Amino acid sequence: MLLKDKLSNWLLKEQDNAIRFLQETVQEASTTGNEASVQNMIAKKLNEMGLEVDMWHPDGEELAKHPYFCASRTNFSSSPNVVGIWRGKGNGHSLVLNGHIDVVPEGDLNQWDDHPYSGKIIDGKLYGRGSTDMKGGNLSLLLAIQALKETGTTLDGDLFFHSVIEEESGGAGTLAAVLRGYTADAAIIPEPTNMKIFPAQQGSMWFKLTINGKAAHGGTRYEGVSAIEKTAVVLEAVKALETKRNQRITDPLYRDIPIPVPINIGKISGGNWPSSVPDTVHLEGRIGVAPHETLEEVKRELGDYLSSIQDEWLLEHPVSVEWFGAQWLPGSIDTDHPLMNTLIKNYEHVKKERPIIEASPWGTDGGLLSQAGNTPSIVFGPGVTAVAHYPNEYIEISKIIEAAEIIALTIYDWCGGSN
Amino acid sequence: MLLKDKLSNWLLKEQDNAIRFLQETVQEASTTGNEASVQNMIAKKLNEMGLEVDMWHPDGEELAKHPYFCASRTNFSSSPNVVGIWRGKGNGHSLVLNGHIDVVPEGDLNQWDDHPYSGKIIDGKLYGRGSTDMKGGNLSLLLAIQALKETGTTLDGDLFFHSVIEEESGGAGTLAAVLRGYTADAAIIPEPTNMKIFPAQQGSMWFKLTINGKAAHGGTRYEGVSAIEKTAVVLEAVKALETKRNQRITDPLYRDIPIPVPINIGKISGGNWPSSVPDTVHLEGRIGVAPHETLEEVKRELGDYLSSIQDEWLLEHPVSVEWFGAQWLPGSIDTDHPLMNTLIKNYEHVKKERPIIEASPWGTDGGLLSQAGNTPSIVFGPGVTAVAHYPNEYIEISKIIEAAEIIALTIYDWCGGSN
Repeated sequence: MLLKDKLSNWLLKEQDNAIRFLQETVQEASTTGNEASVQNMIAKKLNEMGLEVDMWHPDGEELAKHPYFCASRTNFSSSPNVVGIWRGKGNGHSLVLNGHIDVVPEGDLNQWDDHPYSGKIIDGKLYGRGSTDMKGGNLSLLLAIQALKETGTTLDGDLFFHSVIEEESGGAGTLAAVLRGYTADAAIIPEPTNMKIFPAQQGSMWFKLTINGKAAHGGTRYEGVSAIEKTAVVLEAVKALETKRNQRITDPLYRDIPIPVPINIGKISGGNWPSSVPDTVHLEGRIGVAPHETLEEVKRELGDYLSSIQDEWLLEHPVSVEWFGAQWLPGSIDTDHPLMNTLIKNYEHVKKERPIIEASPWGTDGGLLSQAGNTPSIVFGPGVTAVAHYPNEYIEISKIIEAAEIIALTIYDWCGGSN
Repeated sequence: MLLKDKLSNWLLKEQDNAIRFLQETVQEASTTGNEASVQNMIAKKLNEMGLEVDMWHPDGEELAKHPYFCASRTNFSSSPNVVGIWRGKGNGHSLVLNGHIDVVPEGDLNQWDDHPYSGKIIDGKLYGRGSTDMKGGNLSLLLAIQALKETGTTLDGDLFFHSVIEEESGGAGTLAAVLRGYTADAAIIPEPTNMKIFPAQQGSMWFKLTINGKAAHGGTRYEGVSAIEKTAVVLEAVKALETKRNQRITDPLYRDIPIPVPINIGKISGGNWPSSVPDTVHLEGRIGVAPHETLEEVKRELGDYLSSIQDEWLLEHPVSVEWFGAQWLPGSIDTDHPLMNTLIKNYEHVKKERPIIEASPWGTDGGLLSQAGNTPSIVFGPGVTAVAHYPNEYIEISKIIEAAEIIALTIYDWCGGSN
């Protein structure tokens, strides 16, 4: 029997058990600081599958010395990283399969139709925070490995399965795995691409802008300068900068993406009294970083642009720019990299159609794997961006299984081996 | 000796004691709910001056039935109103002298150079929350009455001195005084006009706007609709409406006022994550009400204008408008009303210059006195708007004394009497 058929059959037979396992992992609310119990489940699973398991608590003090360290904490004592290792017999290419286990908070409970960690299945979709981003993708990886194992496969190259913390907060988990030596010739990260293949990943950074005005009584508002009115001028400038930055991007991977590296203003607050002219507004936003830009270049460009807005008041009272919170390095792999070819071939083999190959609209740990771990990465997974970080997050079960089959075949081709 | 000279001499002699009394009243932080102790001081003072004193706790449940009632509470058990009554001998015009005793909160302590309730005097200015708005003005009234009393004056018309609560929150104190019968042929309110005479007072109302967008990931912001971007459209419309409303105002009282009835957006908040497209923004603002407009007309105009903004998204997702918090009725007195003439004559007599006669840029309790109490009101006082509600609020002592002399002469001329 062909390996593809063996894998298909095994996945069909195993599917129900696998989805039960996904339900159990979704039901563990593994927000920042609360990853231990689900990591224990993953470690146990890897162990049962016959992989060597390394579970450790990253040393935050040590990690913080790395230039790419970005986290809001250095204490990871309740947040273990897990790596499962399948040693190859030598001679094959090595591969990292990387998935994060942390999830963003559930947000406003009233916007969820059900409990945010229900794991409930309705019409072939499994619901819950983290289902799409990215416990469903992680399950594709586990199923791919298990399917190969249980169909009697041996590998030539080493395979490392990363179950990392902190992706949602800047990537300290992947950085820790890289620094512990778990790098490889290439990597696959099943973040929610809706089965598209992303050889390039947009990086991003968060910034905070402060716009100052001059307070006055609302009844004599002409005696003040409204920070809200000046914010409208700043918002126009931010949009103009976004246009300028995106006009520079000619990579065909971005052909069908309306705005390759958007600048998003996500939060605004200012003023404190209806009848006072507001003297301060704070904006928080995220700026996309194109694959071949450095974070420093982008920081400089935004700062320079904002300080040259042609507005008399703003020239005298410049917008202040602060970089805070999370950042994600951009990542990329050559579009004709052998792992790309292998993945595309197997995608077509399983799906009987050509994949969509694009650049990702968001950052992933692929930037760290590429830039800190010298491990070029492809992002390809079963979830969908549209529901990531939102209420009623779900994942389509059939996509998880498809991704597992494609990834299993890709592992076998890439690492080499026998079955 | 002329009455003017008697009053001048008395004020000169009494000034130091009076300013000590002002310090003591400023040192009482009479924010909402904390007016009792300073009202006791006022009542004691009125009593010593030989006025009949009525001190009572307004019945909030009863007041709330009045169409002009506007307050965030109905329990005034710790907030007495005080009225001092100087009965005339009959035949003269009656007069209300109205001042509020409540002060707005001190705000950010770091922005004050000294303790906000210090009452400290530096270079002829007395500092502290409430000094300009309007305990300094109240002192002008008390001094005017006391100067007349102590120079042996009797009045023909009745004089009512209102020391009211709740002006900063919608005027329930003045409403209570009006409903208890303390109305008159006309009124003077020494709010901080910087010695200008305001025969017309702008009313105002607070509103809250909610602008909805559509959430999306910041990296694919083109899949959402930013409520912040739509807010920029709404802000433009608000400004256009302000222009339209002000073009209608031709009253010469507004000749030197850049924007007679401004619309001020004082507060903004929206979105909750730097890398999400914000789906809601809230604005809070205040809209000026021209002297001859009704509150209902203005509410209707703003609502209609916002619902007709020519923006496809906003037409389908209309801005929601809510009226909340405080409101101040506009007020006015005829510019050739006899009390106007009397006040102007005495202003010129004391100051040796012509007064500036304008419309006020803010609401006062004059709207309630006129509309609920049939008592047309002039606003004229020694403080300055620029420091009202702001850190390092102060009042110039010399202006308090000048205002007291002008008001004393005006009382005598208006009420009639002998000295």
